[in-house]
Amino acid sequence: MELRSDMQASLIKHAAEDGDVTCAARVSTLGGEARYETSDDGAGLINYLMRDRHGSPFEHTSFTFYVEAPIFVAREFMRHRAGWSYNEESGRYKELQPVFYVPDDHRKLVQVGKPGRYEFEDGTELQRTALSRDLYSAYSWASEHYRSLLSRGIAREVARIVLPVGLYTSFYATCNARSLMHFLSLRTKNSSAKVPSFPQREIEMVAESMEEQFKKLMPVTYAAFNTHGRIAP
Amino acid sequence: MELRSDMQASLIKHAAEDGDVTCAARVSTLGGEARYETSDDGAGLINYLMRDRHGSPFEHTSFTFYVEAPIFVAREFMRHRAGWSYNEESGRYKELQPVFYVPDDHRKLVQVGKPGRYEFEDGTELQRTALSRDLYSAYSWASEHYRSLLSRGIAREVARIVLPVGLYTSFYATCNARSLMHFLSLRTKNSSAKVPSFPQREIEMVAESMEEQFKKLMPVTYAAFNTHGRIAP
Amino acid sequence: MELRSDMQASLIKHAAEDGDVTCAARVSTLGGEARYETSDDGAGLINYLMRDRHGSPFEHTSFTFYVEAPIFVAREFMRHRAGWSYNEESGRYKELQPVFYVPDDHRKLVQVGKPGRYEFEDGTELQRTALSRDLYSAYSWASEHYRSLLSRGIAREVARIVLPVGLYTSFYATCNARSLMHFLSLRTKNSSAKVPSFPQREIEMVAESMEEQFKKLMPVTYAAFNTHGRIAP
Amino acid sequence: MELRSDMQASLIKHAAEDGDVTCAARVSTLGGEARYETSDDGAGLINYLMRDRHGSPFEHTSFTFYVEAPIFVAREFMRHRAGWSYNEESGRYKELQPVFYVPDDHRKLVQVGKPGRYEFEDGTELQRTALSRDLYSAYSWASEHYRSLLSRGIAREVARIVLPVGLYTSFYATCNARSLMHFLSLRTKNSSAKVPSFPQREIEMVAESMEEQFKKLMPVTYAAFNTHGRIAP
Repeated sequence: MELRSDMQASLIKHAAEDGDVTCAARVSTLGGEARYETSDDGAGLINYLMRDRHGSPFEHTSFTFYVEAPIFVAREFMRHRAGWSYNEESGRYKELQPVFYVPDDHRKLVQVGKPGRYEFEDGTELQRTALSRDLYSAYSWASEHYRSLLSRGIAREVARIVLPVGLYTSFYATCNARSLMHFLSLRTKNSSAKVPSFPQREIEMVAESMEEQFKKLMPVTYAAFNTHGRIAP
Repeated sequence: MELRSDMQASLIKHAAEDGDVTCAARVSTLGGEARYETSDDGAGLINYLMRDRHGSPFEHTSFTFYVEAPIFVAREFMRHRAGWSYNEESGRYKELQPVFYVPDDHRKLVQVGKPGRYEFEDGTELQRTALSRDLYSAYSWASEHYRSLLSRGIAREVARIVLPVGLYTSFYATCNARSLMHFLSLRTKNSSAKVPSFPQREIEMVAESMEEQFKKLMPVTYAAFNTHGRIAP
Repeated sequence: MELRSDMQASLIKHAAEDGDVTCAARVSTLGGEARYETSDDGAGLINYLMRDRHGSPFEHTSFTFYVEAPIFVAREFMRHRAGWSYNEESGRYKELQPVFYVPDDHRKLVQVGKPGRYEFEDGTELQRTALSRDLYSAYSWASEHYRSLLSRGIAREVARIVLPVGLYTSFYATCNARSLMHFLSLRTKNSSAKVPSFPQREIEMVAESMEEQFKKLMPVTYAAFNTHGRIAP
Repeated sequence: MELRSDMQASLIKHAAEDGDVTCAARVSTLGGEARYETSDDGAGLINYLMRDRHGSPFEHTSFTFYVEAPIFVAREFMRHRAGWSYNEESGRYKELQPVFYVPDDHRKLVQVGKPGRYEFEDGTELQRTALSRDLYSAYSWASEHYRSLLSRGIAREVARIVLPVGLYTSFYATCNARSLMHFLSLRTKNSSAKVPSFPQREIEMVAESMEEQFKKLMPVTYAAFNTHGRIAP
């Protein structure tokens, strides 16, 4: 049994730069005269598109991430449908490895407030210890039962039903800059956001990692996204 | 703790009949002269549309199902993105009830063959007994740990990570006849199918229930779907 | 030859009320205890969903419109992809009727400003007269040539290429409340809008007609849409 | 006034090779052990995925085309919604250039048969001459009226309504291998196709050009597409 506290979102490949946005946008006003010159960052144009919610020029871009995260995070992630493609590790086709999520010491454990507006507080040392112990125990039992069922010849797709949503899974996720910004707007907290979001911390960790990579590849688009309140165009 | 073996897919509301398909299709050839008369079933036209993969006329229909199924089924279900809308019970906003899935006596437990082509065999009495015992034990421990964490004041969204994918969840799923047929083509086995599918039995149970309701509401479309090999147009 | 200045968007059928939104949303917090009671309008809940951009609960609704509008309007309309289904009159399968669009006296004819920010002014009587005359002439010639090509045995799909984008077409368009609000946010001007839009007047006429019907069927959702700046959740 | 008979679909950029498909697919059976090695073409795996309609692994790819084609072709093209993104030249924001489509000598002009099953025959020399003359005349008049309206100060978005659907437009179209195969299956005739299609010749010309480029970039996927009847997985 392995315990992890991290979330991984590795950028596997991409075809995405700020120039893709400006090229696509300029076809509106220039038609055949618009040359596909992606070196032009066109900050003014990108800001205008973001502000006035012209979303389609941001779609001519592509990012493929390889994500490692617990099932409960993957469940939230894959609720994003438009502009997203997924392929995930299968509990029917392979024996799942006993790798489980435990919150690290920075994870706040106690919620106060009401649905959609919860604030989180640290929790006491006692709570943290109890959590570690209970998670360890629950994960151990689940792995034990999973292995036991497999060893008895029960099909993988049946045996896996004892495994908890804290089990790590892995998947490829492909998106474009527009669908990525939509994801970031809902799955991060950020002081630039016009509308507050209340993501679960674990999916926010995935989102933050993706955001770092987005920022590097499309700095002008990223800046405009923040300037205009982090609402996807 | 409650154990269930059933899957529920209740049709909550719908706006779907065969006439919707023929009306939408006839606008192609009749334009403004096409009257929206849904009493006309137009079997010939529907067969032609299905055979030649004219899919769009099947989209002007709407079905809303309320589904109760374990998390591992919901996970597969929500991989269907195009033409599907979802709202699901939240482990962040409510305390989840300890209701778990156990296969009934008809569920075959042993897989033979290779990925994508597995066949299933019954399993021995011994295997079945071991499964029941292990599931019961795993579910008990998981519920116990979940309750324990909650009672210690740990946030619901954290405590729930010990819960297994055999836990029941519930959600609304809205689709149209085209996206429903796509779902059925991949999530049922059926001798009329031109291309074989190998769904996990539990999601097939959900699909079969939805298929019954589809058949009643759109009998002509349903017949054409089978006649033409159960590939969504 | 017939000349028209109106746009039609007739609501053919629908399965859409405010209660659909609240029912779908409550499954998050109530799960199986949420009863599908569409009589409950839940204004507070709907306002909360709209404000915080929880879009999915608005998707469990369905509207089918029959639209009559010129081709240049249909072209803009069908750029809306997510949550929209279309079936349109075909210039390949039927002889198109010579019905053309002419702006009425309220249509402002002169644009000042720059792309994305044009303002329109009335135009002089002279301009209006010239427009009428030129349109009439252009449409007459186009119809004449279309008929001439058909009478010579040229295929409809070839002959129609002489027809102008001012020709009326007709189509069914099915959407849900979320995709409809997205459409309205971009295709109407409205003083409640947080972000200004600059739709062409003709598609705005279609949108206004759809908005009237949306307002009647889902008054609480509609009010919340306006309250929160007419940005689709 | 310029007359053209060609269709252009230039591949502007891409992130698409056969290895993308196999990498995405292998995550199912290998999870974290699957290395993203796109040099592996995995013909057997790709054939299996195509045959059994496992479509999602084909989505982790991206193609951006710059298309020049008449409006009537763009209209059909943009009916493809899922997995497609568009940005098009705007008749509101720029003065449209008088470039029009005339069929070349290979274009068959006379249709026999019934809707959805039309066959085309060459047409006589007389028909061809009449077509050229009528098109030329219609296009001249339309350009004339467009220019006349613009010179009178009428807004571009109003003046353009006299322009015929034979006018060339240009747009960027971004898709993935799955949505591209769906497009090809409906917009080409091909003897390998399990289900016959009856596309208008002009959009087929665009599709053929895209197909050539797809074939070069993803030869294994392309071969499997043909082997399995040209139905998108």
